[in-house]
Amino acid sequence: MSETLCAFLAASTPDALPNEVLEHASSSVLNVIATAIAGCRDPAVERALAVMAPFGGPAGANLIGRTERVDPTLAAFLNAAASNVHDFDDTHTATIAHPAGPVTMAALAAAQMRPVSGLDFLHAVTLGIEVTCRVANAVSPEHYSRGAHITSTCGVFGAAAAIGTLLRLDAGQMRDALGIASASSCGLVETLGFMAKSVGVGNAARGGLLAALLAEAGVDGPPRPLEGARGFFAVATSAPRPQALVDGLGTHWEMTRNYAKPYPCGIVLNAVVDAAFVLRERLGADAAPPQRITVTGGLLLAQRADRPHVTTGREAQVSAQHAVATVLIRGDAGVAGFSDEAVADPAVRALADRVSVATDPAYPLESVELRAELADGSTETILVEHARGTAGRPLSHGEIEDKLRAIAADGPVDAQRLIRAVNDLADQADAGVIATLAAA
Amino acid sequence: MSETLCAFLAASTPDALPNEVLEHASSSVLNVIATAIAGCRDPAVERALAVMAPFGGPAGANLIGRTERVDPTLAAFLNAAASNVHDFDDTHTATIAHPAGPVTMAALAAAQMRPVSGLDFLHAVTLGIEVTCRVANAVSPEHYSRGAHITSTCGVFGAAAAIGTLLRLDAGQMRDALGIASASSCGLVETLGFMAKSVGVGNAARGGLLAALLAEAGVDGPPRPLEGARGFFAVATSAPRPQALVDGLGTHWEMTRNYAKPYPCGIVLNAVVDAAFVLRERLGADAAPPQRITVTGGLLLAQRADRPHVTTGREAQVSAQHAVATVLIRGDAGVAGFSDEAVADPAVRALADRVSVATDPAYPLESVELRAELADGSTETILVEHARGTAGRPLSHGEIEDKLRAIAADGPVDAQRLIRAVNDLADQADAGVIATLAAA
Repeated sequence: MSETLCAFLAASTPDALPNEVLEHASSSVLNVIATAIAGCRDPAVERALAVMAPFGGPAGANLIGRTERVDPTLAAFLNAAASNVHDFDDTHTATIAHPAGPVTMAALAAAQMRPVSGLDFLHAVTLGIEVTCRVANAVSPEHYSRGAHITSTCGVFGAAAAIGTLLRLDAGQMRDALGIASASSCGLVETLGFMAKSVGVGNAARGGLLAALLAEAGVDGPPRPLEGARGFFAVATSAPRPQALVDGLGTHWEMTRNYAKPYPCGIVLNAVVDAAFVLRERLGADAAPPQRITVTGGLLLAQRADRPHVTTGREAQVSAQHAVATVLIRGDAGVAGFSDEAVADPAVRALADRVSVATDPAYPLESVELRAELADGSTETILVEHARGTAGRPLSHGEIEDKLRAIAADGPVDAQRLIRAVNDLADQADAGVIATLAAA
Repeated sequence: MSETLCAFLAASTPDALPNEVLEHASSSVLNVIATAIAGCRDPAVERALAVMAPFGGPAGANLIGRTERVDPTLAAFLNAAASNVHDFDDTHTATIAHPAGPVTMAALAAAQMRPVSGLDFLHAVTLGIEVTCRVANAVSPEHYSRGAHITSTCGVFGAAAAIGTLLRLDAGQMRDALGIASASSCGLVETLGFMAKSVGVGNAARGGLLAALLAEAGVDGPPRPLEGARGFFAVATSAPRPQALVDGLGTHWEMTRNYAKPYPCGIVLNAVVDAAFVLRERLGADAAPPQRITVTGGLLLAQRADRPHVTTGREAQVSAQHAVATVLIRGDAGVAGFSDEAVADPAVRALADRVSVATDPAYPLESVELRAELADGSTETILVEHARGTAGRPLSHGEIEDKLRAIAADGPVDAQRLIRAVNDLADQADAGVIATLAAA
């Protein structure tokens, strides 16, 4: 399996990628740069930067959304952490991995070490995300349900594959890179909701970058790092599906099943937010809020997000009550809509108290019904079948551009230049320009 | 559990440690410094240094056995990797963890960042090794048998606890440090025998050092990083023993059950090497080698170490045939005795071909019988009941001094000054002096 995968990776060339795959890679890159801009001032990032920068070497790489330059391994770490800190990045819905951050940010740091063309960069990111998704498929669902933070634990393999591609490692070196990545794979679900989560995500990017560089320098690894008797699959799950690693390589692109997130909150809330926006439009932004609201969704909605009383922005990210209220009262389901400030808004809290969650197992993850009882006694019912950011209604590239523009508004990054540069990436001589344009 | 453990760690003071515990810590420190001197020129260390140093910051810490100075996080990484690269360090026989390297090397780097007394250093190392052993006990045996390299996966917690102790973290910060460590825990058995192993071991030291520094700076973690529903135990094993984390804290010292290794080879070979040395002494060093030799041991001996034909030093570390031959022909069971050169020695290979391994389940791990048929038709039979470096016959501090002297012979480190400094550690004002004396 490892051998087949690595032979494929080493032999792959940009011109073998279908256009839609390259376009998906371009959207993924744009999306995680946007969410890194959103997350770059989070306390987890600020504190990690303060602690780790004094251990860093020559400042060869940019931090997205910031003015500081740091060494490339730290840039990979911090940019990946920033891109994921709000869970605003992307979701490979089959595994709930967020694949693009660690891969893209490791590749961006590498591109600032050794110049590469934009097309080679997109090729590397494509293969990296593909590897993350396939490794994640091979160990799902048990790996994540045990408590492994699949974004990090599998992301390090994708990052290693991406950098290995940029470095043009041969198949044997690529296998070494995955072997070193296997010795660097970490991340726990228990840390979600805490800054420690970002350490796991940062490690995935940094560990993958170093894994490829170490393999290039002759650090060897086992021949079967994934499927070996004491390899990653054996540790990750009691029921691995090794075929997921290699089935349809080069024809089926699992990375196209990774969707940009429309809102910085739990994926179960995508449909809830959509429904609330439809209601807000129907009623008018200045209308009096409804008397009662009931949101009906599948089992996961109630299990994960039935939280009427929340006290922090982080907690609000998994509260259906808050999601409905922040949209109706503030018209905002961006980072500010799930901030501590939004949570402290008395009007939001008052409305959240009138929102309840009901369960109907017939609703899949991407669907909810919202029913509002208005002050005049009438009711409004809204059915969302396909939430934004899911397979039935993925964000278009243009919507991701809008997401970046909204995030970058009033900030130091020139959104329009950055978007243009990412959109032209396939024709850029130097992918590193993206990193400088994304910096403050 | 995490809370109880962290309260204990935060409240602990050096004067609460029994003398024998402090002495054991001192022996552990001396031992892993010795094995780091032995391993500091291994290609895994050389290549990691070459790749990682350019990303490193101001050179504030020493590399053991070498002239280079690097940033403290890289020093922790490389010194820990060097200390374990030959599996010559130590073994907590209950779990097969090698606990002292990651803990000691993280603490040594920290001591070069912020001066600490020798006693505080020994205290921190004691608590760190204690935490590694207890976390390892809590997830054994399934964790290791699945394929997790317990030295690394549990070592990061010990390193974090040691540095947290040096930084005088309070109980809450200590819990954060363990939470960050939980997001940094990595290492796979599949990588053993390859340089990638050293990346996992290095990560444990570096990750633990950073975890404590990040916690000090306010990076938070979950309240129950170990026993939480999606915490380390849940991911590590289906049958955790959480009580092992806290039972008898402060009265039972699990770290005293960690034994320095006498030879740089698999622990199943300790008794084999002992028996071969007894035979060599009986026959005389210049006697003709025996016609046939049979080594009889427990099940693990044959499973792990019945390897008549080996081609590399690394493979020889798990060959009973090579172990017997290198002792009888070359009188050497040190690093050189398990080198590529020793493997290539025709006399060693010729004798190895005449050694066979037999199994008798009655023999425990620390015991073998060696039976030699001599040219004159007579036989010699040697029974080793308690191998050196096991519970029945641990290496004394003096034997560890000898081990260091033998390793440092002809090298750049002044063994006598270094040994004296470690032996006086409890009275040293600055533990960092050890790092400079251990450097070249």
